Amino acid sequence: MRKIKLLLSYDGSGYQGWQRQPGKATIQGALEEALGKIYAQPVKTVGSGRTDAGTHALGQVAHFEAPKTLKGEERLMRALNSLLPENIVVKKAWLAPEDFHALFAARRKTYIYRIWNSPVRSALWRERALWVPQPLNLARLNEISQGLVGEHDFKSFQTTGTAVKTTIRSIEEARWKALSGEHLIEFRIRGNGFLKQMVRNLVGTLLHLERNGGGAEELKAIFDARDRQKAKTTVPAHGLYLYRVEYPPALDNKCRKL
Amino acid sequence: MRKIKLLLSYDGSGYQGWQRQPGKATIQGALEEALGKIYAQPVKTVGSGRTDAGTHALGQVAHFEAPKTLKGEERLMRALNSLLPENIVVKKAWLAPEDFHALFAARRKTYIYRIWNSPVRSALWRERALWVPQPLNLARLNEISQGLVGEHDFKSFQTTGTAVKTTIRSIEEARWKALSGEHLIEFRIRGNGFLKQMVRNLVGTLLHLERNGGGAEELKAIFDARDRQKAKTTVPAHGLYLYRVEYPPALDNKCRKL
Repeated sequence: MRKIKLLLSYDGSGYQGWQRQPGKATIQGALEEALGKIYAQPVKTVGSGRTDAGTHALGQVAHFEAPKTLKGEERLMRALNSLLPENIVVKKAWLAPEDFHALFAARRKTYIYRIWNSPVRSALWRERALWVPQPLNLARLNEISQGLVGEHDFKSFQTTGTAVKTTIRSIEEARWKALSGEHLIEFRIRGNGFLKQMVRNLVGTLLHLERNGGGAEELKAIFDARDRQKAKTTVPAHGLYLYRVEYPPALDNKCRKL
Repeated sequence: MRKIKLLLSYDGSGYQGWQRQPGKATIQGALEEALGKIYAQPVKTVGSGRTDAGTHALGQVAHFEAPKTLKGEERLMRALNSLLPENIVVKKAWLAPEDFHALFAARRKTYIYRIWNSPVRSALWRERALWVPQPLNLARLNEISQGLVGEHDFKSFQTTGTAVKTTIRSIEEARWKALSGEHLIEFRIRGNGFLKQMVRNLVGTLLHLERNGGGAEELKAIFDARDRQKAKTTVPAHGLYLYRVEYPPALDNKCRKL
């Protein structure tokens, strides 16, 4: 069996999220359908994690066990991209070592959340960024967000529904910046793992604190409560992008170009 | 009669272009439908010019004669944006002087053309930029494009079908740049007017010359031929954005906020 690693990007707008669900349009479902055609038999894939309905990806990672060796396997990526719908693309494909696992070997993830910050909504970013009409103070948002960096119990920011061993996660980076020339603002967060809807719950809380003059203390109180009821709104999925998934260098070094 | 000037942005993907056509989804049709609801009677609009099916706008301008004075007219823009489909937005609205005319008073237009320049197509830019897999040399493109600047007869770059008095146009700016952090490249062109599909014909020709080692001389030969057959491919509409329409300062100064 040969293990193949894929780097994927998708526009999540038309999908019920990453995970395969019978009778629903999902990214994983579309990917497995395309692989099934290429290998002429069912192929199961494993993603680095789920993404919600409407969430986009610039760097989702998945793997699968190739049921047979293909002639001209280096063309696998091209074959996949011609079979996949236009809103899903395979950016890279590698032959991965046997011990690679897209979900269990993932060490860090980076998400970005985009906001269209203008009194007037955007016709072109409507499915790619959350519209926030009130002017946002980036310096304040950055100040509050520093309270996320480090190891914390993120139980207050977890939407229940998925069993996890621990709700403790470590965040290395959480910062806001304006994107040039537009009304776009981007929040970038990098950590060793994220609970269900954690980024969307965090962004909702940060926006709430910014608007209501809250700061590091209020954020700490929400952490300490370990209670989802204390955190604020969950922002919509359409502003969220899975940006990058990182694996141990030892595994990366064993991946070979197809 | 009060003349209202509107600044519009739209995602042209789902539309048969700007111009109203019976039974077809067009930007102007959607705008007039919304205005008809607000004024409770048919309202005709005039745009700065047509945009092709699939072409986007960041700064289209239109005007209309308001058939009556509305109470709370300053809320017109908000009313329009709540009635318009999500892929069309009114960015600004003014009370314009009687002698303002969106089409006849326009003095300059700026278009941008976006290209996704990567061996792999983009899931997120698929309807917003042309995919060009071969690496483009921006320095060369900029060099060739300098030949567009100035007054020229653009007959070779005109798609026939619209009667015009003259095919001479003056171009003030024509330059390429890479957009940061992505595989996006943007061509910006500003001039006193553009013939039918002129920008798409120009971009197609510039890309052809870049790929085939042509330069200023080949471009001049195409100009001199005054023959559409000599210019190269028309690039697709989905990479094109009407970016800005400029009017004489004397008219701009007489526009008042609603």
